[in-house]
Amino acid sequence: MRARDLAEPFPVVTLGTDAIDAARLLAGQRLPGLIVCADNGRPTTVLPGSQVLRFLIPQYVQDDLALARVYDEQGSDDLLGKLFDSKVSDVLPRKQDLDEIPIVDQDATTMEVAAVMARMHSPIVAVTDGETLLGAITVSRLLEQLLPSAPAQP
Amino acid sequence: MRARDLAEPFPVVTLGTDAIDAARLLAGQRLPGLIVCADNGRPTTVLPGSQVLRFLIPQYVQDDLALARVYDEQGSDDLLGKLFDSKVSDVLPRKQDLDEIPIVDQDATTMEVAAVMARMHSPIVAVTDGETLLGAITVSRLLEQLLPSAPAQP
Repeated sequence: MRARDLAEPFPVVTLGTDAIDAARLLAGQRLPGLIVCADNGRPTTVLPGSQVLRFLIPQYVQDDLALARVYDEQGSDDLLGKLFDSKVSDVLPRKQDLDEIPIVDQDATTMEVAAVMARMHSPIVAVTDGETLLGAITVSRLLEQLLPSAPAQP
Repeated sequence: MRARDLAEPFPVVTLGTDAIDAARLLAGQRLPGLIVCADNGRPTTVLPGSQVLRFLIPQYVQDDLALARVYDEQGSDDLLGKLFDSKVSDVLPRKQDLDEIPIVDQDATTMEVAAVMARMHSPIVAVTDGETLLGAITVSRLLEQLLPSAPAQP
């Protein structure tokens, strides 16, 4: 089985999408992450949900977890509940190594898909045919596909 | 709002659970990850779904992603579909830094919960009262709670 056989439709956002709309898409549909596409439809970034949270967390708190602990309850809620007038392009991680974005070719094997997810700590991979997004594979989808055929334990 | 207010019931596995049952629990309930508890009920590890995939991937493939690409289609499916007679304790990561396990105290603020998820690339955090597991918070749950109250964009 190849990646193309496992890929399912997945909503995408673009670099110009409002960051708050991207976060709401993730929350509302309980997506495991976001796929960000360029204007030509080519996926450029795949962000696990945990990394989408960075949209909402000040940089200095991301740099030093201890600073998160000094916020009082109300201050914490206020800060997190407030999303500025940002686009997705404004809140993406600055530096991205292309080798570390969970995108696989449609010909990738299940082993490669699993290894990419594990290596990149990503609950989803985007599946492409050249520059075109075919869909996405989630960890649940991959496991569901693999496990039913597992031999019974002796 | 504190972690205790956001925590929801979450299924757990123990170190003695069959690894395949743990993987099936994740897939069947589409959980974002697994919470592993010691015999006394204390959570000891929280594994994102992407890391549960390591149960199924040979170590040498995890060490070198390029090796995943040389598997042919059938070989890849066979290998991944086969889970040995392992317990969860057999397949957990060897070294674990306690500071890098996404477990928070019930008094943690939403900011701390978000920062822990982002820092540790985890779609869930376990919430504890001392050594007792109260439940878990997912990225979706946290965002759902935070975003509806976000002020309208100007």
